[in-house]
Amino acid sequence: MTATPRRAGRRPGTSQTRQLILDTARRHFAELGYDRTTLRGIATAAEVDVALVSHFFSGKQRLFAEAAALPYDPAVVLSRLLAGPREQIGRRLADQVLDLIEAPASRGRLIALIRAAASEEGAAQLIRERINRELLVPLAAGLGSPDAPLRAALTGSQVVGLVMARHIVGIDPLPGTGREQLAAAVAPTLQRYLTGPLDDV
Amino acid sequence: MTATPRRAGRRPGTSQTRQLILDTARRHFAELGYDRTTLRGIATAAEVDVALVSHFFSGKQRLFAEAAALPYDPAVVLSRLLAGPREQIGRRLADQVLDLIEAPASRGRLIALIRAAASEEGAAQLIRERINRELLVPLAAGLGSPDAPLRAALTGSQVVGLVMARHIVGIDPLPGTGREQLAAAVAPTLQRYLTGPLDDV
Repeated sequence: MTATPRRAGRRPGTSQTRQLILDTARRHFAELGYDRTTLRGIATAAEVDVALVSHFFSGKQRLFAEAAALPYDPAVVLSRLLAGPREQIGRRLADQVLDLIEAPASRGRLIALIRAAASEEGAAQLIRERINRELLVPLAAGLGSPDAPLRAALTGSQVVGLVMARHIVGIDPLPGTGREQLAAAVAPTLQRYLTGPLDDV
Repeated sequence: MTATPRRAGRRPGTSQTRQLILDTARRHFAELGYDRTTLRGIATAAEVDVALVSHFFSGKQRLFAEAAALPYDPAVVLSRLLAGPREQIGRRLADQVLDLIEAPASRGRLIALIRAAASEEGAAQLIRERINRELLVPLAAGLGSPDAPLRAALTGSQVVGLVMARHIVGIDPLPGTGREQLAAAVAPTLQRYLTGPLDDV
């Protein structure tokens, strides 16, 4: 009943199997969250033996780290973001975040990472390091703004909140709001956090 | 070894025991997240039999719903928020959110709720209903702004993101940022989402 053509075909190579496990893991982490994702569940969904999952990835934390790793080089993204006009950095960053959520290479990774950060310190640390320290702090500093760490953290709060509200909590109408409208709505917030006044007088 | 003076004293009344379980549950949900909180762990920490936890609260979901229930009447908060000047609603809402996080009666509840929303649909639903539909949507509508649902959802994204960044992920320097500075930094964002232009032209 559960036999599939794939099982009957040629045995997939090692790197394909590894990739299959990784893709399945990413989907599980994004949809179920960290705590409810199990190596056994991933193995079942990927139709491989659970021992094979352990063979490729030594444990859930390692598997998560690789599955949720953001597929970008912070230095490259940073220089691209800093290349345009300073007064449009909010829009460029909003576009970058939406790109990351929608591109096939990264679909689900940012969601998995932010979902997991609610319970897993390792995921929270990835956000602090990969998103904040390696990207947002140098971005705020590169824009010549004082208080770069505070600006970066506020920027991160809106990015994290947008992903939470749109993809995890599902606050209507955000899940169905068009990309253009969303980027335009959020851009001035990111712009002010990165370059504008931080008080409301 | 584990005997405490409390055990030797007068047996606490039913309502005190119930309250003790509830306070312990709130702390566990806020610190551990939904999935890692167990009835047994709560019972152990509260020094009561796990059967007593089940007696008062029929299961983890019910216990969570009560532990994370926000201790306010949306109608009362709403009329208070709408009472002041329209152009200062962002600041009043920022103050309200920070009050909620800091007041003893609600300390931990908002954090527990948002942390749990990452994995537990019941918690996500509480946010959509109690925070968004009963408070933020009527607030945006009461301010006479068009597109009230989108405005409310964007507002919710920043509120959720602030709690995530400051209390759950811990993006420095937000955990140590003073209340006044934080309210001032976030207020213009909430103000624009609720009453300002939603595009960045």
